[in-house]
Amino acid sequence: MTLICDLKAQENIKAQYLCKYKQVLKNKNGKDYCTVKLQDRTGIIDGKIWSLHSGIMPFEVDDIVSVEAEVLLYQDNLQLSITKLKKAEASEYDLKNFIPHTLKDVEQLETELFTFIEQVQQPFVKKLLEDIFYDEGIYQEFLVHSAAKSVHHAYLSGLLEHTVTVTKLGVSMAELYTGINKDLVIAGCLLHDLGKLYELTNFPKNDYSDEGQLIGHIVMGAEFIHDRISQIEGFPKELEMLIKHIILSHHGEYEYGSPKRPKCLEAMIVHLADYADAKLKMVEEFLRTTQGDDIYAGYHKILNRNIRKVNL
Amino acid sequence: MTLICDLKAQENIKAQYLCKYKQVLKNKNGKDYCTVKLQDRTGIIDGKIWSLHSGIMPFEVDDIVSVEAEVLLYQDNLQLSITKLKKAEASEYDLKNFIPHTLKDVEQLETELFTFIEQVQQPFVKKLLEDIFYDEGIYQEFLVHSAAKSVHHAYLSGLLEHTVTVTKLGVSMAELYTGINKDLVIAGCLLHDLGKLYELTNFPKNDYSDEGQLIGHIVMGAEFIHDRISQIEGFPKELEMLIKHIILSHHGEYEYGSPKRPKCLEAMIVHLADYADAKLKMVEEFLRTTQGDDIYAGYHKILNRNIRKVNL
Amino acid sequence: MTLICDLKAQENIKAQYLCKYKQVLKNKNGKDYCTVKLQDRTGIIDGKIWSLHSGIMPFEVDDIVSVEAEVLLYQDNLQLSITKLKKAEASEYDLKNFIPHTLKDVEQLETELFTFIEQVQQPFVKKLLEDIFYDEGIYQEFLVHSAAKSVHHAYLSGLLEHTVTVTKLGVSMAELYTGINKDLVIAGCLLHDLGKLYELTNFPKNDYSDEGQLIGHIVMGAEFIHDRISQIEGFPKELEMLIKHIILSHHGEYEYGSPKRPKCLEAMIVHLADYADAKLKMVEEFLRTTQGDDIYAGYHKILNRNIRKVNL
Amino acid sequence: MTLICDLKAQENIKAQYLCKYKQVLKNKNGKDYCTVKLQDRTGIIDGKIWSLHSGIMPFEVDDIVSVEAEVLLYQDNLQLSITKLKKAEASEYDLKNFIPHTLKDVEQLETELFTFIEQVQQPFVKKLLEDIFYDEGIYQEFLVHSAAKSVHHAYLSGLLEHTVTVTKLGVSMAELYTGINKDLVIAGCLLHDLGKLYELTNFPKNDYSDEGQLIGHIVMGAEFIHDRISQIEGFPKELEMLIKHIILSHHGEYEYGSPKRPKCLEAMIVHLADYADAKLKMVEEFLRTTQGDDIYAGYHKILNRNIRKVNL
Amino acid sequence: MTLICDLKAQENIKAQYLCKYKQVLKNKNGKDYCTVKLQDRTGIIDGKIWSLHSGIMPFEVDDIVSVEAEVLLYQDNLQLSITKLKKAEASEYDLKNFIPHTLKDVEQLETELFTFIEQVQQPFVKKLLEDIFYDEGIYQEFLVHSAAKSVHHAYLSGLLEHTVTVTKLGVSMAELYTGINKDLVIAGCLLHDLGKLYELTNFPKNDYSDEGQLIGHIVMGAEFIHDRISQIEGFPKELEMLIKHIILSHHGEYEYGSPKRPKCLEAMIVHLADYADAKLKMVEEFLRTTQGDDIYAGYHKILNRNIRKVNL
Amino acid sequence: MTLICDLKAQENIKAQYLCKYKQVLKNKNGKDYCTVKLQDRTGIIDGKIWSLHSGIMPFEVDDIVSVEAEVLLYQDNLQLSITKLKKAEASEYDLKNFIPHTLKDVEQLETELFTFIEQVQQPFVKKLLEDIFYDEGIYQEFLVHSAAKSVHHAYLSGLLEHTVTVTKLGVSMAELYTGINKDLVIAGCLLHDLGKLYELTNFPKNDYSDEGQLIGHIVMGAEFIHDRISQIEGFPKELEMLIKHIILSHHGEYEYGSPKRPKCLEAMIVHLADYADAKLKMVEEFLRTTQGDDIYAGYHKILNRNIRKVNL
Repeated sequence: MTLICDLKAQENIKAQYLCKYKQVLKNKNGKDYCTVKLQDRTGIIDGKIWSLHSGIMPFEVDDIVSVEAEVLLYQDNLQLSITKLKKAEASEYDLKNFIPHTLKDVEQLETELFTFIEQVQQPFVKKLLEDIFYDEGIYQEFLVHSAAKSVHHAYLSGLLEHTVTVTKLGVSMAELYTGINKDLVIAGCLLHDLGKLYELTNFPKNDYSDEGQLIGHIVMGAEFIHDRISQIEGFPKELEMLIKHIILSHHGEYEYGSPKRPKCLEAMIVHLADYADAKLKMVEEFLRTTQGDDIYAGYHKILNRNIRKVNL
Repeated sequence: MTLICDLKAQENIKAQYLCKYKQVLKNKNGKDYCTVKLQDRTGIIDGKIWSLHSGIMPFEVDDIVSVEAEVLLYQDNLQLSITKLKKAEASEYDLKNFIPHTLKDVEQLETELFTFIEQVQQPFVKKLLEDIFYDEGIYQEFLVHSAAKSVHHAYLSGLLEHTVTVTKLGVSMAELYTGINKDLVIAGCLLHDLGKLYELTNFPKNDYSDEGQLIGHIVMGAEFIHDRISQIEGFPKELEMLIKHIILSHHGEYEYGSPKRPKCLEAMIVHLADYADAKLKMVEEFLRTTQGDDIYAGYHKILNRNIRKVNL
Repeated sequence: MTLICDLKAQENIKAQYLCKYKQVLKNKNGKDYCTVKLQDRTGIIDGKIWSLHSGIMPFEVDDIVSVEAEVLLYQDNLQLSITKLKKAEASEYDLKNFIPHTLKDVEQLETELFTFIEQVQQPFVKKLLEDIFYDEGIYQEFLVHSAAKSVHHAYLSGLLEHTVTVTKLGVSMAELYTGINKDLVIAGCLLHDLGKLYELTNFPKNDYSDEGQLIGHIVMGAEFIHDRISQIEGFPKELEMLIKHIILSHHGEYEYGSPKRPKCLEAMIVHLADYADAKLKMVEEFLRTTQGDDIYAGYHKILNRNIRKVNL
Repeated sequence: MTLICDLKAQENIKAQYLCKYKQVLKNKNGKDYCTVKLQDRTGIIDGKIWSLHSGIMPFEVDDIVSVEAEVLLYQDNLQLSITKLKKAEASEYDLKNFIPHTLKDVEQLETELFTFIEQVQQPFVKKLLEDIFYDEGIYQEFLVHSAAKSVHHAYLSGLLEHTVTVTKLGVSMAELYTGINKDLVIAGCLLHDLGKLYELTNFPKNDYSDEGQLIGHIVMGAEFIHDRISQIEGFPKELEMLIKHIILSHHGEYEYGSPKRPKCLEAMIVHLADYADAKLKMVEEFLRTTQGDDIYAGYHKILNRNIRKVNL
Repeated sequence: MTLICDLKAQENIKAQYLCKYKQVLKNKNGKDYCTVKLQDRTGIIDGKIWSLHSGIMPFEVDDIVSVEAEVLLYQDNLQLSITKLKKAEASEYDLKNFIPHTLKDVEQLETELFTFIEQVQQPFVKKLLEDIFYDEGIYQEFLVHSAAKSVHHAYLSGLLEHTVTVTKLGVSMAELYTGINKDLVIAGCLLHDLGKLYELTNFPKNDYSDEGQLIGHIVMGAEFIHDRISQIEGFPKELEMLIKHIILSHHGEYEYGSPKRPKCLEAMIVHLADYADAKLKMVEEFLRTTQGDDIYAGYHKILNRNIRKVNL
Repeated sequence: MTLICDLKAQENIKAQYLCKYKQVLKNKNGKDYCTVKLQDRTGIIDGKIWSLHSGIMPFEVDDIVSVEAEVLLYQDNLQLSITKLKKAEASEYDLKNFIPHTLKDVEQLETELFTFIEQVQQPFVKKLLEDIFYDEGIYQEFLVHSAAKSVHHAYLSGLLEHTVTVTKLGVSMAELYTGINKDLVIAGCLLHDLGKLYELTNFPKNDYSDEGQLIGHIVMGAEFIHDRISQIEGFPKELEMLIKHIILSHHGEYEYGSPKRPKCLEAMIVHLADYADAKLKMVEEFLRTTQGDDIYAGYHKILNRNIRKVNL
């Protein structure tokens, strides 16, 4: 096996990896060499191409490359000394093997998603959700998209996992209070991050698009819903405004990029569910990817504190 | 019936109410008169005692008083013109009739509370919860205490309702992530606001105690747990620290009075569940107590925004 | 003349005013009377209707009413004692007489507006501006709308005046630096507050609409532009994104409700021009409406400081 | 030619440069070598002196040095291998060749400056401006000084360019509102950063002076004006206070080092004009000095965002 | 005795007070009457002039007035019903009787002040202090001036008391650390608030002057020192800068109006001593002027918290 | 002598040092070598163990090690080339020789500490202080503990020095105001940082303990006092609350980790004294450890400004 997590020093391997970084440098004799970072779904490894001979074919960052290499140990870390490299054709590989993906069962997440849609009573809300999630062009992208560039849910099907979890949390909250319109909560949860489909480019890039930088997923999501609704005859104006309000206010505060703060219980619930999942997933991932036996997993830069494991 | 919500202009009534405000003033002829606010569990009403004759017996704020009065309409509001007033004896009334209480079924809340305790596996955690909630002296106060002076859950059994709702939310969250110690989440949720038993005085006052102002429910709760644990032989030091950490960090940020911020998933969950219930209950109560048909319920001072109803 | 600024004590008048406030109260004998605030374009005055006899016909806030009254002096202020009052028909008055309006020459502002449009070179930008400002339905509203509920430009043609001034400032800035796309600056300035047409209702109300509260003029303006552009064949996607980015970022910072901060020079110019006009107009109006000879005009609550006149 | 922007690998050159950095290090054999950074008005380049023989004469940072060297390519960047180096005498060079300067026409900036002074009507304001800008000792420094250590206008004649641009912007604003004293606006704009003459040392250092660190250009400017005014007989006290107020408040907010916030329209205009020029120049320079074809020029650390080019 | 603190209901009095407030109103019959607030050094009392007959002579706010009146009890508070009133001549009274003053012994404060000056070793520092504090014109104002408009030390000799206390605290701190220039600490403490002599007008007004509002005591103090130093031949420039730096930075942070933050130990000490005295005096005065037996003195608006007495 | 401050290049030494850092690396031939940092009370030095032969015995970070080495000069810094290394036994050394310690006289600090305790009048306060400081187990740790991990007082007896200095400052303040309970001030100052005994582990580690991270010295100190007081019969509840309040509020603001802000004069004094000592000591240490002749000691990261020396 040549999965990155399984590599051992002194092996000679043939394998395919995703190139995430590439720089050409000069050695002391003025000769070019090349340093790369290669990734599959199980990890990431440094590589060196010491000689740019004819066996090293042209390639770019975000290409899948077929390599022949020796695995070396350098300063306690494994490294590839690459002797052959060639860009792979799209037909030769499945992108999913090179990108981390959700640890949850995707089919079950899909089932849960459609079960939520079925629970909706209000016909226009239901029609809107069906129009979007039964649209194959959208749904196939939704199925694999990430929910972030990094930090949390930055993996294949991250958006699906995040959306379903937020909806579960939102519905749990809705059931504890009176006077909540559950259909709006479900719709708000399912649609709140839809703008991320276009704010972040597809894998393997998974980086901010130009539109993402200029407009952002919050407004892009509201505009997307607006365009969809304009194709549903008789969709009530008030309902459109409420759904867009939920999307626009789901970051909760102006400082986090929401142009409106939640003004109704349903918008507050979507915000609180999104906020909770973002925080908890961030720490869950941090704990899972931390190595070592120390009871403290280390300093979390975004949360600005040490994170502690609990092993009782 | 003489419930405040049922009073009608021109009636002559005999009734018992809780006095929440009292001021003696002088009229233009230099004669004393007295203005009061009287409350029962259904509302609050202004009263005037125009003449302090012998039928008006000594009384103080927070006394239950038996009054005879005429109901008048003054500037669109009802008002009592009180002709007789006497402080009632503790034996003559049930305090619960004069104070707003939870709208939920208290017995069901109790059942849910003890069901959570039963779910706990870790023997020391379970022992601690049982020692506290099976202690009649504590439990009887816990059953009726409020969870706040105002804003949200500021009514009889408010602490019970808040505690159970936070625990439900916390357990919902715990089930969505891996690596969570559910026992700690349950214990943290059930104990997080226990310090409020002593931060706020009992009804009818329900106001900050001296200890509440100097120490606060966060540290008082941690100290209470510390004292209880010190009576359980063999209670693990690490477990004590984690439970106290959850209590100390449950406001989430220093600015909100927590001397520590949540450092483990369990502490984050207790904080997020508490935060969500506080916000949602605040708006739910605001919407319920707002009158009028306007789609906007009005400006919420703490949330600093207009709150909108949703009637689709 | 019965302009409010010209009224004198002891006069008996017949006049039309706009009712901005109305409350029915009870006097000490339990009889209803009514207190109102009446406004024309020159000022505002308190009125009392001491007896609700048959000469007082039904009316509501924001109605124009014809009144007969005596002008009285009460505690150093004039007040109307109203004896007859009747709601006026729309055909009987011109709303402009009852609402403050811009002090600038509206025709000149219009000329300046269209001169800016003519200067635009880029054909799609020009087409978009023409489609909007030559659309009579939009333009007639734009001509009279206010630019705010209060604080600055909260008067007839306030939006026109603000838009033209911001464009002048923006063009002045654009000429001082290199590499600026002047067409984008003009378009951004002319369109930046278009969403206010629908965020604020028309006069005499001039208050936030439901959509204004839920979505806000920033996103409403971007969505409006989006819908208009979708009807122009071949409109470049990048150009649409840049125009929407300028509108979305024109408040400059997240805290002021912009979901994006300005990322290109053109967006920064529109923001800086808008910011400068808002601040300066606010103080200009404050100084103009302040009475008295003190060199200090008084404390300005929004700017949080005393404002000083300069009379050298 | 030996301008840094024109150097090519493999050349042998003789040239003069400004030394901005110097460090003596030891190689593995314990022998000293020296690494330097050399600058002229077109750029900056690394240099190495591998052997400190007699051809390398004593020199310090901020000296102009005459060098003989070979141009080499090292890791994609040019580098000088220096074989001879000698400090140049002040008579041998013109400092302006070694420091970046304004891209604007200095003579035209001067003409604009004096045209503004001529427009002033108030005799004492005019006298003060003439006393300062016709004082050769001051004016010659003003002509070449920078307006900042870095970030924006940190080049020869930067202070002149910034001052003239702010005055243009300020006068544009003054003409759009009523009740503005234009003389005060002109004086405020021309004098607002005069303290920078002494807060920053002259080129080539262009770094904070001790007085700059302890007192700062805002208070230094006000004190300088105070001293100058005290030599003009009969200068009105109120006028002095207003000019000093404008200088003291030109950063707009306490957080930015202004001990007073603008309290009159004239002070607000000077602040807004200064603020706009600082922001826009910062981005204009950032865009001009960015290389590469990407539509995004990169992340701007002070503005804390990506900056986008507009090429329509 | 007619000190306000000694008045009793039903007395007829003749007395002199300082008028701090005056408003002419109309009664229901359209007749003028007048409401005033009168003050002496022991308190403040409301007064009514029900009839503006010839015994009531012209007077203004901040005049000392001689009154004849009856003391009445109205709604639990004493009130004067004034029958005669005349403005007093400056020769007829001593202003000190009408304004609160320091509770400390002024002569002892003076002794302490000059003892500090004598301790100074550095001759230029000593010369500067002597030039200022031995200047009778300055010293006589310094002796009586307040240190604030309100909040703390807002009474006669408040500036003297504050200055001496800050110097004592500063010297205590200086003695605990090594490397402190004690002369600079003493000079900084004694001079830090000298600008208040001109920022606040003299009693009885004790309000912000125009210069105080435009320039502020921090910069005014630095400028005052600058002018004084310019008259001392040979005064070292570095020493002048350090003393001005201490004055300019004594509020500690930009947000509190300091254009520089303390950069040397001596400036930090002056700031910390000033900060401590302001906070402690504010609470000491709040506790002293609070009535009632409650252990809590009440809510302090500036400190934003309840203040508790300690009586052990 | 082999004190680190006395080492010279080319020496061969035998010495004992504290190992603060250790990393095993591989050289280009794949052979292990080891880089360490060694410390004594006078400084810190890098070391290399080029060959891990049998003369290099097992050791860990925070061990005291006996080494034989050659002192070399590498890139202007001294370095040890270690040829023998062995972990020292606890009996072979005195830890104090390897850790920086207070520059003050410890015996004098102890005398001052007990003099403060003797001054206390209130018998319960005195009893509490004596119970704690005469408890040998506690006192021996208190004598040597640091007051911080870094920044200020991070050395042997740092806690003692900080405690005594804060108490001196607190008593100085207490004497300047009326109505202060001096016993409470002394107790608050002496006890305020007692929690640091357990928040920071003992030297040589001096790092945060698990309890320190989860609970923090503020709450740990309050709990420690609570446990001690519970063993003193009759200790007044109010007195306990006040002492705990002082400890809990001594950081002054929520943002700095205090769950309560000071509500009485005594708590404010303890906070102000602690705040002043922390700030001043931080700068005093920074100035003392700065090398070079520049009048500016450099940029202080925590204070976020340049620090200037004063040498007059």
